[in-house]
Amino acid sequence: MFGDLSSIYRPLTTETVGAYIRTRPELTAIFNPSDELEAVEVGDGNLNLVFKIWAKADPDRTIVLKQALPYVRLVGDSWPLPPDRARIEAQALEIHSRLVPEHTPHVYFYDPDMYLTAMQNLNKHLIMRKGLIQGIKYPRFAEHIGTFMARTLGSTSDLVLDYRAKKMEVARFINPELCKITEDLVFTEPYRVTERNLFHKELEPQVLALQADEALRVEVAAMKEKFMTQAQALVHGDLHTGSIMVNQTDTYVIDPEFAFYGPIGFDVGAVIANLLLSYASHEVRTADLAQRADFRKYLTDTIIQLWHVFVREFQPVWDQVDPINMPKGYQQNYMLNILQDAAGMGACKMMRRVIGLAGVEDIRGIENADDKAVAGSLALNMAQALLMNRKQFTTIEEIVEVATGAKPTYPWK
Amino acid sequence: MFGDLSSIYRPLTTETVGAYIRTRPELTAIFNPSDELEAVEVGDGNLNLVFKIWAKADPDRTIVLKQALPYVRLVGDSWPLPPDRARIEAQALEIHSRLVPEHTPHVYFYDPDMYLTAMQNLNKHLIMRKGLIQGIKYPRFAEHIGTFMARTLGSTSDLVLDYRAKKMEVARFINPELCKITEDLVFTEPYRVTERNLFHKELEPQVLALQADEALRVEVAAMKEKFMTQAQALVHGDLHTGSIMVNQTDTYVIDPEFAFYGPIGFDVGAVIANLLLSYASHEVRTADLAQRADFRKYLTDTIIQLWHVFVREFQPVWDQVDPINMPKGYQQNYMLNILQDAAGMGACKMMRRVIGLAGVEDIRGIENADDKAVAGSLALNMAQALLMNRKQFTTIEEIVEVATGAKPTYPWK
Repeated sequence: MFGDLSSIYRPLTTETVGAYIRTRPELTAIFNPSDELEAVEVGDGNLNLVFKIWAKADPDRTIVLKQALPYVRLVGDSWPLPPDRARIEAQALEIHSRLVPEHTPHVYFYDPDMYLTAMQNLNKHLIMRKGLIQGIKYPRFAEHIGTFMARTLGSTSDLVLDYRAKKMEVARFINPELCKITEDLVFTEPYRVTERNLFHKELEPQVLALQADEALRVEVAAMKEKFMTQAQALVHGDLHTGSIMVNQTDTYVIDPEFAFYGPIGFDVGAVIANLLLSYASHEVRTADLAQRADFRKYLTDTIIQLWHVFVREFQPVWDQVDPINMPKGYQQNYMLNILQDAAGMGACKMMRRVIGLAGVEDIRGIENADDKAVAGSLALNMAQALLMNRKQFTTIEEIVEVATGAKPTYPWK
Repeated sequence: MFGDLSSIYRPLTTETVGAYIRTRPELTAIFNPSDELEAVEVGDGNLNLVFKIWAKADPDRTIVLKQALPYVRLVGDSWPLPPDRARIEAQALEIHSRLVPEHTPHVYFYDPDMYLTAMQNLNKHLIMRKGLIQGIKYPRFAEHIGTFMARTLGSTSDLVLDYRAKKMEVARFINPELCKITEDLVFTEPYRVTERNLFHKELEPQVLALQADEALRVEVAAMKEKFMTQAQALVHGDLHTGSIMVNQTDTYVIDPEFAFYGPIGFDVGAVIANLLLSYASHEVRTADLAQRADFRKYLTDTIIQLWHVFVREFQPVWDQVDPINMPKGYQQNYMLNILQDAAGMGACKMMRRVIGLAGVEDIRGIENADDKAVAGSLALNMAQALLMNRKQFTTIEEIVEVATGAKPTYPWK
């Protein structure tokens, strides 16, 4: 699974990507031999090369090539990372294509020697995080993402898969290196003093107080254990608003390289957490109070709606289980556990985005240091309230109420 | 993993086993070419052939050969079962040998073509279940089994193993067919009307009432989900008193063919459940009241002691974790969850032994039908109390108190 790189492997460049494309028969329906091709490298993530390629004469004939690098791009080749994640991503995309084709980019091929996937260029869509920063509403997002999660998570769980097929899938999606990144960056480092953390100086007193809170660390440890042991369904594993491309009509989920068999609440929590991070950022990003309230209402309505869509779209799974061995009461507990896990795991994802190595543009992109500290402080308090109260939540409305009831501690009184 | 049988594979017989032994260089230190060998087939389990072989001139020069059959022996070749479990068992024995050599039979070799393990003949030891039926006490058992579980379970969990090693072990011990037997026989069939159940007629009203209890089925479903999804440690998977060989000084754990990454409480609960089944059986097996009380006190003392030994022997695991990310409170919750899981999963194992396809001799071996019904009725009530109260338990003493407070419902008033 972590064998040596193939001798064929080489990272592509904008110079070499054209020649590579000419070797792939899967692309002859898109590009003619006579086409002049243009390419740009746009990978703004931390782990991969991403090329957009198009025919100069007709830019709508276009694809994306995503190639895994054998190290963490953010840090450099001092942090090696096996490119096996490209296989995981290609196999997860194949499953998503089958279950929710309308929300999955079309894949032309996966090249196992180059750890490279050729897929649809979503050139009519924007990374959702960038849209939310600009205050753009996506009215169909809640419906789409609720459906995406219910179908991809329900259909890969023991509730639907045969006992043997599910366990073989668990083995196929063993993904140690990428899980380790989450274990460290989401569930470990933010809650201790370590040099890899990267919070803004103004927040130091609040961060130190949070790190000193043993009761909080007890709950984070429980969330980490769940992440590491609960093989409930094939989770996307990195379902933040940077892994979602949207416009007013469509929603696409990209980048499932962190996919593995984990707790369903980890995906649901990721979406909710990133909408709440946006909520926190608009504390300072939008000065006009009416406009701020309006956009925040869009965000909280979206959270509430996506959960209800998720529950509705999960219902077909319950309709086909045996009600004697899985009675109604069990089904309700199952959904309740997902909701509470989403609150707890989402909270960890919010805290790490403020305290840890990898931040989010929503907050870290705020230019004024005071404003950034206010938004970060608020996000931490929202997260802490969610984590510590998660076992009391029985509805999504309660989660939203508790989260939005938090106030920033900064500036210190 | 479930490929076709090797062309070399053939089930051995008492006639062919001698010739097979002559082909194995690993056994030349035990048997000389001139030895006349004697063999008997003693497999009383449901899945395998087990041969005891010895030199006629010196019966202490002896081994056991265990060979997997490609079907469930209890039912016949209409229930095929891949012999891959023999590989699982050999690999689990290897791990147990490393961690607790004093409680693991010595393995001479594993033959992957024949799905066969050659191991120490524990000819100075008795299957513990048979000893308990005879009312024999094993004073060192609690110390031994508590140590066995703490070491084998602690050392294979995320608490000790490296993130990558643990996940590779999860994949290596994917064991779908044997897990499916447990999923069906322990967590599904006993709680519904099905022809495979095999309870004694006298208990029918109590069994039907139990099967009609939706609240109970909700809790069983939660235990089943945990069994199917929680990859916490390499569990033995079938740790009842028929998988333990004992005498007054030694304890050996055999037969880990059900091993997989599952919840630690499943093993702990199996031991407790089988001691409680013995407790229930002595309601009628021992007529003398003082003698009964004395043996039962031995059983409950053993349950209490083995848990305290388990906690004590788990402590070295906690001593080496990072106390910042795994604070004391988390460590206590971790052990508490094991205790509550043991109560719930042990309860399912008790119920299935009364209601389901595979019973235990402790109870099914009682000759008088009325007596058998009394013991079965008591075991069901003990189990039900444990399952339904499991989230309230904070100590092993409470578990013993609730279990031993139950009374048989049969004969009906």
